[in-house]
Parts: sequence; structure tokens; C-alpha cells
Amino acid sequence: MPLEEDCLFCKIIRGEIPADIVYDDEFVLAFNDINPQAPHHVLIIPKEHIATLDDLGPQHDGYLAAAFAAARGIAAHRGLNADGYRLVFNCGERAGQSVFHVHMHLLGGRAFRWPPG
Amino acid sequence: MPLEEDCLFCKIIRGEIPADIVYDDEFVLAFNDINPQAPHHVLIIPKEHIATLDDLGPQHDGYLAAAFAAARGIAAHRGLNADGYRLVFNCGERAGQSVFHVHMHLLGGRAFRWPPG
Repeated sequence: MPLEEDCLFCKIIRGEIPADIVYDDEFVLAFNDINPQAPHHVLIIPKEHIATLDDLGPQHDGYLAAAFAAARGIAAHRGLNADGYRLVFNCGERAGQSVFHVHMHLLGGRAFRWPPG
Repeated sequence: MPLEEDCLFCKIIRGEIPADIVYDDEFVLAFNDINPQAPHHVLIIPKEHIATLDDLGPQHDGYLAAAFAAARGIAAHRGLNADGYRLVFNCGERAGQSVFHVHMHLLGGRAFRWPPG
């Protein structure tokens, strides 16, 4: 799967930059966010470089399925299910996307306000 | 696809309760949120009753793919792509889930803060 030379998350996938990895499979890598916004804050990324949600296509359906399965599994493993959790994707800078490699935020362990930012 | 008698969103799918529908296909229905949190705030729901993200399984991969494709299409149609948009799923009451039928929130048309609620 194609990776990008200068992408922070591709560097994590290649093992060039350390990360606190919590889950790893064929399609996705999950690691703790270095700037957590909740007691549990995990990023779930595709193992292929996809810049934004707008770049997703039918060829990435495996990633989506794997990302949601990973989120469920991590939430269950951490006992977040009863308490609840929030999944967030930002597309574009103004929405808060800072790394241009698609990532799902899994946040849990506290109550969440509305609106979501 | 099974629906639930007393579920608000199943009633919208069955046409028993009106909604401002913006997109409709085999897998998903999308309509404007009645309590919008941004200039654009659309809910994208599976046409099958699935209570929470924890109830998703491999049989729902078609829904996930369709939901993200619908979000992309609606964002493009409304010109949100350049500006950015945020997708949010709440799982459980404490995370802010008020209707227990899985729904993706698509929010756009303004800047978004961090944390996401």
C-alpha cells in the first residue's frame, strides 16, 4: 500500500517515528493521541496514505469496516461501551484536521458536550 | 431490513414522521437535523435498525461504505469540501446519543473547535 515520504502518520506506520500503538491489523493502525482530549483518545488510521475523507473511494471500504471494528474492539477492551464513546473525523483544516492522513478519533472516559466543537 | 416499531428514525424511514430528506439510497437515508449545530447539519442513518455502534457487525459494512459515500456526496453538493466538515458518531447516552438508531452527524459551514465536545 502506498505511503508518503513526508507524512507524519506514514512515518509512524513505517516505524520511523515512535507511537504508543494499541492495535494493528492488515488495514489499520491505532495509537494513543499524543495530545489527548479525554481519558481515552485513540487515533485509528488507514495503513495506506489517504489525505482526506474526500479522497476515500470504494477501494477503501475495507479500511472503513476495519476502522469501525477496531474502534469497537478498543472500546470493549477498555470498558468504554457501557459508558459511551464518541468517534470523530475531521475533513479539512477549518474542521480541525492537522495531519493530512485520514484518521478516526476515538474518545471516551468522560461525558461529552454538544455541539461537538 | 428490520425496523423497530417505536424508533423515531425507523418512523422517518417508514414515512410516518416527516423529515427534510436530502439523500436516499438502498442503504442510507439522510436528512437535515431538526436542531442544527452548524449551518449544515445532516444526519445519515442506516435503513436498518441498529441501536448503537456496538451493534455494528460485518453484515453492516455496506452501510458504513454508503454512509461515507453519502457524506462525501452531500459535502460536495453543498460546496463544503474546500471549507471542511466534521463527521461525528455518538455511542451511548453519556457520549450524547439521544436516538438509539445509529446515525452519523455531518457538520459543516463554520470553523470547529477542539476538543469535539
